[in-house]
Amino acid sequence: MSLDTPTQKPYDRLSAALSEDLAAVNALIRDRMASKHAPRIPEVTAHLVEAGGKRIRPMLTLACARLCGYGGTDHVKLAATVEFIHTATLLHDDVVDESEQRRGRPTANLLWDNQSSVLVGDYLFARAFQLMVEPGSLRVLDILSNAAATIAEGEVLQLTVASDIDTPEETYLQVIRGKTAALFEAACKVGGVIAERDDTVIEALATYGDGLGVAFQMADDLLDWGGVDGEAGAIGKNIGDDFRERKMTLPVIRAIAAGDGEERAFWARTIGKGDQRDGDLEQALSLLQKHATLAQTRDEANAYVAKAKAALDVLPGDPLRDMLSDLADYVVARLN
Amino acid sequence: MSLDTPTQKPYDRLSAALSEDLAAVNALIRDRMASKHAPRIPEVTAHLVEAGGKRIRPMLTLACARLCGYGGTDHVKLAATVEFIHTATLLHDDVVDESEQRRGRPTANLLWDNQSSVLVGDYLFARAFQLMVEPGSLRVLDILSNAAATIAEGEVLQLTVASDIDTPEETYLQVIRGKTAALFEAACKVGGVIAERDDTVIEALATYGDGLGVAFQMADDLLDWGGVDGEAGAIGKNIGDDFRERKMTLPVIRAIAAGDGEERAFWARTIGKGDQRDGDLEQALSLLQKHATLAQTRDEANAYVAKAKAALDVLPGDPLRDMLSDLADYVVARLN
Repeated sequence: MSLDTPTQKPYDRLSAALSEDLAAVNALIRDRMASKHAPRIPEVTAHLVEAGGKRIRPMLTLACARLCGYGGTDHVKLAATVEFIHTATLLHDDVVDESEQRRGRPTANLLWDNQSSVLVGDYLFARAFQLMVEPGSLRVLDILSNAAATIAEGEVLQLTVASDIDTPEETYLQVIRGKTAALFEAACKVGGVIAERDDTVIEALATYGDGLGVAFQMADDLLDWGGVDGEAGAIGKNIGDDFRERKMTLPVIRAIAAGDGEERAFWARTIGKGDQRDGDLEQALSLLQKHATLAQTRDEANAYVAKAKAALDVLPGDPLRDMLSDLADYVVARLN
Repeated sequence: MSLDTPTQKPYDRLSAALSEDLAAVNALIRDRMASKHAPRIPEVTAHLVEAGGKRIRPMLTLACARLCGYGGTDHVKLAATVEFIHTATLLHDDVVDESEQRRGRPTANLLWDNQSSVLVGDYLFARAFQLMVEPGSLRVLDILSNAAATIAEGEVLQLTVASDIDTPEETYLQVIRGKTAALFEAACKVGGVIAERDDTVIEALATYGDGLGVAFQMADDLLDWGGVDGEAGAIGKNIGDDFRERKMTLPVIRAIAAGDGEERAFWARTIGKGDQRDGDLEQALSLLQKHATLAQTRDEANAYVAKAKAALDVLPGDPLRDMLSDLADYVVARLN
C-alpha cells in the first residue's frame, strides 16, 4: 500500500510492515464484535473501532511477536484482545469523564446513552477474555489479567485523587501506569511470551512497553495544555479538559509545588473546590509557563523514551526493532 | 453454628453443610477485594459484598465440586470468582437502572457516584479473571469467559428491548439466561470440571444450573409485581420497579398477547412511550391478574425447577444432592 520512505512517520512504517497481520486483526475484531442477539453492540463499537483509532497497542503485540521470530497466528488473537480491552476502557472512561468528544467526534455515551457504553464495554471485556483464552497459554492469561486489574485500579485511583491538590508525583505515576502503560507493557510482553523467548527478552519488552506508555501518557497530558508552548493541538482534543475535570497531571503537580501561597490558593479554588471562572484556564496556563512545568514534563517523557529505547538493545538488529525505537522518539517528537 | 433441622430453609442447610468452604471463600473475597493503591475500592465493594448477599452462586460451585468428590482447594477460588463477577454486574446494573435501593439499602451509585460504580465494577471483573486463571484449567477459563460474554450480551439485549411491547417470549428467555442463568450454569459446571468428572455429569450440572437460574429470575420478575397474588414482597424490593423501568418481563409479555386493543394501547402508552400516570401501576397489575399471567409465570418457573431437579438424577445419592434439589423447589416456593 504505502511506500516505506524515510519521511513517513514511524507509526505508518510499522503499519506498512505489519499490514497483513493488521488486516487479520481488523477482520478478527469485526468478527468478534458482532452479536447475534444484540445488534446494539456492533453499532456502538463500530462507531468507536472505526473512528480513526491508530491500533497502536495491537501493533506492539504484532511487532514484538514478529521481532521475537514468532511464526504462528496466535499473535493476531492477542493483538485483538489488547484492542478490545483498550476499547472497553475508552467506553467506560467516556461515561466516567462525561466526555462529549473523542478524536474530534461525538462519544458513544452522547450518541447512544451511558447505559449502552457501560454494558457494551463489559461485553468487549468479556470478548477480550474469551479471545485471550484461545491460544491456551496460562502465562499470557496471567499477564493480561494482571494488566486488566492494574488498569482498573489506576482508573479508580485517578478518580479518588482527582481534585486533590496534594497528589504526589508517585501517585501520578501510578495512575498513568494504570491507565496507559500497563496495557502497553502487557501488549509487548505477550508478543515475546507466545514466541517462547527467555525472561531477559520478555523483561526487555516489558521495559520498552512501560517506558513507551508512560512517555505517551505524559505527552498526552501535556497536549491537553496545548503542548510545551501552550498552543492548541490539532488532534481534536479540547485544550484544558483535564483542568475542567480537575485531574492532577504532572505539569500542575509541579507548578503547585513550585508556586507561592497565592498560587496555591488559585489551584485550591479551581481544582480543589472546582470553582472555575472565566479566565482561570488562561491563568492556569500562565502559571505552568512561569514555572516551566510543561517543558519539565516533556523532559520527563524524554527520559522514559530513552529507557524504552535502551531496553530494545538486547533484541536482534531488525527493521522492526528500529521502527519500535523510532516510535518511542515520535511519542515525544509529536509535541514539537 | 446452626443445627440441621428439617424446618431450616434449603439455603441455610446448604450454607451449614458448606460452612468451612464458605468461610474460606469469604476470606478470599476480602483479601482480593483489597487494593493498596485505591482505598475507594474496598469501601464500595464492602458495602455491597457485606450487604446481606446470600452467596448462592459460590455455594453452587462449592456444592457441585464436593458432590463430584473434589478434594482440592481450587473450588474456593472459583466460587470467589463467580461472586466477583456477580458483584461486578450488580454495580454496573445499578448504574444502568439508576437504582436507588438494593436489598433494602441504598445502592453504591447513590452512596458514592456512578463513576465509582463503573470503575470498581471493572476492577472486580479484572480480579475475577485473575482468580479464575490461578487453578490453571483452560476448560474452566473457557466456561467462565463464555459466561461473562453471555451475561454482557444479555444485559445489552435487555436494554435494547426495554420498552418494546412486541418483545417475544424467546427474547425474554435469552435476556434472563444472560442476566441470571448463565452464571448459575457456569458456577455449577466449573464445580464438576475441577473434579474432573465426565461430560455426562458436567452436562447434568449445567442443566441444573440453567433450570435453577431461569426459575430464579422468573420468580424474581414475579416478585417485582408482588408475587402471584400481587401482594407486596417483604424482600426490600419496590413493587413495580420493572414497570417503571419499562422492562418487558414474562407476565407483561403474556398479558399483552392475551389483551384486546384497548389494553394494548395502555401498554403502548405506559411501557412503549413511558408515559406513566397515577393509577397506571394498579391498572397494569389488574390486567396481569385478569389474564392470570402471574400464575402462568409461576407455572413456567415450576417447569424449569422440575427440569433442574431431574438433571440431578445422574449424580450419586448424597445429602448435598438433596439440598440442591430442595434449593430448586425453594426458588419457587418462596413465591407462596
